[in-house]
Amino acid sequence: MEKVGFAGLGLMGGPMVMHLIRAGLDVAVYNRTPARAGQHLRAGAELCSTAAELAGKCGLILLCVSDTPAVEEVVFGPSGLIEGAAEGSLIVDHSTISPSATREIAEKLRQRGVGFVDAPISGGTSGAEQGTLMVMAGGEAGHVERLRPVARHYSSNLIHIGPAGQGQLMKCCNQLVAGLHVLALAEGFRFAGEAGLKPADAHRVLGGGAAGSFIWDKWGAMLLEGDLSPGFKIKLHRKDLLLVRQECERVGLGLPGLKLLLELYEKAIDRGLGELGDQALSKVL
Amino acid sequence: MEKVGFAGLGLMGGPMVMHLIRAGLDVAVYNRTPARAGQHLRAGAELCSTAAELAGKCGLILLCVSDTPAVEEVVFGPSGLIEGAAEGSLIVDHSTISPSATREIAEKLRQRGVGFVDAPISGGTSGAEQGTLMVMAGGEAGHVERLRPVARHYSSNLIHIGPAGQGQLMKCCNQLVAGLHVLALAEGFRFAGEAGLKPADAHRVLGGGAAGSFIWDKWGAMLLEGDLSPGFKIKLHRKDLLLVRQECERVGLGLPGLKLLLELYEKAIDRGLGELGDQALSKVL
Repeated sequence: MEKVGFAGLGLMGGPMVMHLIRAGLDVAVYNRTPARAGQHLRAGAELCSTAAELAGKCGLILLCVSDTPAVEEVVFGPSGLIEGAAEGSLIVDHSTISPSATREIAEKLRQRGVGFVDAPISGGTSGAEQGTLMVMAGGEAGHVERLRPVARHYSSNLIHIGPAGQGQLMKCCNQLVAGLHVLALAEGFRFAGEAGLKPADAHRVLGGGAAGSFIWDKWGAMLLEGDLSPGFKIKLHRKDLLLVRQECERVGLGLPGLKLLLELYEKAIDRGLGELGDQALSKVL
Repeated sequence: MEKVGFAGLGLMGGPMVMHLIRAGLDVAVYNRTPARAGQHLRAGAELCSTAAELAGKCGLILLCVSDTPAVEEVVFGPSGLIEGAAEGSLIVDHSTISPSATREIAEKLRQRGVGFVDAPISGGTSGAEQGTLMVMAGGEAGHVERLRPVARHYSSNLIHIGPAGQGQLMKCCNQLVAGLHVLALAEGFRFAGEAGLKPADAHRVLGGGAAGSFIWDKWGAMLLEGDLSPGFKIKLHRKDLLLVRQECERVGLGLPGLKLLLELYEKAIDRGLGELGDQALSKVL
């Protein structure tokens, strides 16, 4: 199997690449802060000092960084992937970034003979650690199939959505719907508490019926325990909602729930809750 | 077993009482429009011409009518239940009405020696027909236990929430959370369609992950088939959301998602969508 490169050893990328190393794949890594690669090197990965060097050594390069500028930097910036990538290599972006920018990146790489798949992930840090992420992939079918045998080590579900950018669009849709479910959780708990119900009763009773959701279930249980730690951070969810708004503006769509969500996420960040989990949104109502 | 009375043979009450008759219980019915009792009389129920007559014949009287004034009318109005109810009888209200009015009704009946349980239901017309409704009960434990052997014929889950009014409060919470999930469904589908995803793909992909919900699953499937028929009618959901707002005002709580929901439900009704199912809310975005 071809050598696999991974750029971006953050909260998601770090555990993802560990699965590849443990599975015995030939892995090289690159991170802007090399110190974060300690456990990966001890487990047998090779460290590259630039993205260009990583791309020069690997036919398949995965990346997982924070936002659109970070992806553009690691691909096209100084000593970026594009400087080392051979014709026929494939770059897979697991970050959540702009669908429009993604289409442009894919096209620029195509002109250089380099394949690109946008492959944002869902499942949070626990999904990354357990290797059960959902991957929403946009790009050519052949490229997605080339990713599949590698991704199975950190993903239980890789779905090919459509052409370049469609993975990111699906992730946008996911973040919009999940965000509105967070709002439902926040208002439901607040109402229960203020109106004189026990929130634990509301959580148990409503979860089994028409008001049930993944988020009501999981993050509701955390809220009940007073656990505001991040499965998914408020500041990251807000970043993703800004991508949704950008896409809405592109197609001339106004969504009032999205508008309200963005106001509430802003408020949460203003109050210093940005590093907490989504369930902390209940604190701003 | 004591004779059971049922007042209100609408879309919910009609099938609920049929389960009791088929199970062999001794059942009397009352409906403002007696013609709706046809199938119940053929199946063996007795028809009463007033609510007072119904209460005079039955120790346990269930009712399921449209709103707070309708409950007050059938209980305290001319020839109402209170005129016939013997001391020690029990009235159970399966309607969805005001929690505050419910507490007052329960107290007035208590002073007359008549028990009261607020027992709003969830599960829609299909739940009523299949006998799988969820019942959220408020009142004294002994009264709820007296209801239980009867309710099991139309309910798969009867939960005692707390004292009088708490069943209605839980139902309010349910309608608030479910309403925000309807908003999530509406915005998610609208975004998918406008941004260039296939809504069927979005429905399938997101339903399995963090954006999944009962409503995304069930009503999303109906939306995909263009089926806007009511599981739950927009005009009824709006009525329930007004009860939620009333409770919020009582305790001085402002919920921005609830406010937005009410605006959207109003808009849907203005556009003539009130008789359609909740999933038609997507048409007003």
